[in-house]
Amino acid sequence: MHIDPHEDSHSVYRTLTGLVVPRPIGWISTRSEAGVDNLAPYSFFNVVSVDPPILMFSPVDRPDGLTDTTVNVRETEEFVVNLVTHEFAEAMNQTSAELPPSESEFDHADLERAPSKRVEPPQVAGVAAAFECELHDVLDVGSNSLVLGEVVWVSVRDDITTSGKVDTAKLDIIGRLSGGSYDRIDNRFEMERPD
Amino acid sequence: MHIDPHEDSHSVYRTLTGLVVPRPIGWISTRSEAGVDNLAPYSFFNVVSVDPPILMFSPVDRPDGLTDTTVNVRETEEFVVNLVTHEFAEAMNQTSAELPPSESEFDHADLERAPSKRVEPPQVAGVAAAFECELHDVLDVGSNSLVLGEVVWVSVRDDITTSGKVDTAKLDIIGRLSGGSYDRIDNRFEMERPD
Repeated sequence: MHIDPHEDSHSVYRTLTGLVVPRPIGWISTRSEAGVDNLAPYSFFNVVSVDPPILMFSPVDRPDGLTDTTVNVRETEEFVVNLVTHEFAEAMNQTSAELPPSESEFDHADLERAPSKRVEPPQVAGVAAAFECELHDVLDVGSNSLVLGEVVWVSVRDDITTSGKVDTAKLDIIGRLSGGSYDRIDNRFEMERPD
Repeated sequence: MHIDPHEDSHSVYRTLTGLVVPRPIGWISTRSEAGVDNLAPYSFFNVVSVDPPILMFSPVDRPDGLTDTTVNVRETEEFVVNLVTHEFAEAMNQTSAELPPSESEFDHADLERAPSKRVEPPQVAGVAAAFECELHDVLDVGSNSLVLGEVVWVSVRDDITTSGKVDTAKLDIIGRLSGGSYDRIDNRFEMERPD
């Protein structure tokens, strides 16, 4: 089967989200200028640079304007990326509801806030890890806002470390597939990188 | 545990690749100006825009210059993203070997080329799907080259479709974790998106 995006633009979203899998989930917390704490999951999310550490996420702009997350990031230039392990899956899903900017998804999903160290937006209390980020750049790319943030502080829950280092094998994380589908990452295998 | 990237820059790579998981894998084919077909996997890879469809990948620049992939993309402004299902895992791993620019990873890993429809670089014969891309932009972001490509043609193997649409449930795909670890995506669950 072939798809020409210029001819079949209606099927492109499904094709992209169905094939570019599994996607990591960045659960992004921001604080609006009015002081409302926003929280929403994005799976167009990844590392962009290692040194300095820079993460990207890319919300689809809404027909009626930018998402609350994008507005807050542009205005305050700060955000936190919270990781989504399996125990937080339901709560994360609740925060994808469409709420007005005056309502906090933390309260809607009954999540506790924990203070961040270097930025204003709070993080989700109890998450396995959180990256505190300062805005590096926001770029308009097609239908989306590509947000780049430099990581200025990382909090890691001790039970996902071994000898003082992050241990991915202890991380009960989930990945995003298409539609309402997710995957629990528990069928690991190893390959030795060739010389 | 806390990590301050400015103080612990040596542990940042491990922290990023250990926590931003599972990452999708873009197995990128390019053709050099000299006509050599390059192929290499990148897991700093995702969707950036839905309309037009734009994908990103972000190679870490080498101490001695750019990767062959980045050089080819800058020169020819074309690339193909091949998907990596489980049957291609070993071959994909072979193409992560360091080869001189004059040697093709297709030949090194004993992979057949299939012609692309809209761009010059060939795709890996038999892959579940391939996105043919024209360069949208390359940005220097920290230690990396952030490559953005517009998808101009998508090939999808019929056995991963249902009623003419991509069916992620039929896709035996793998995700990238840290070090030499991967995950086979086969423990799916569903959550209904809230209103």
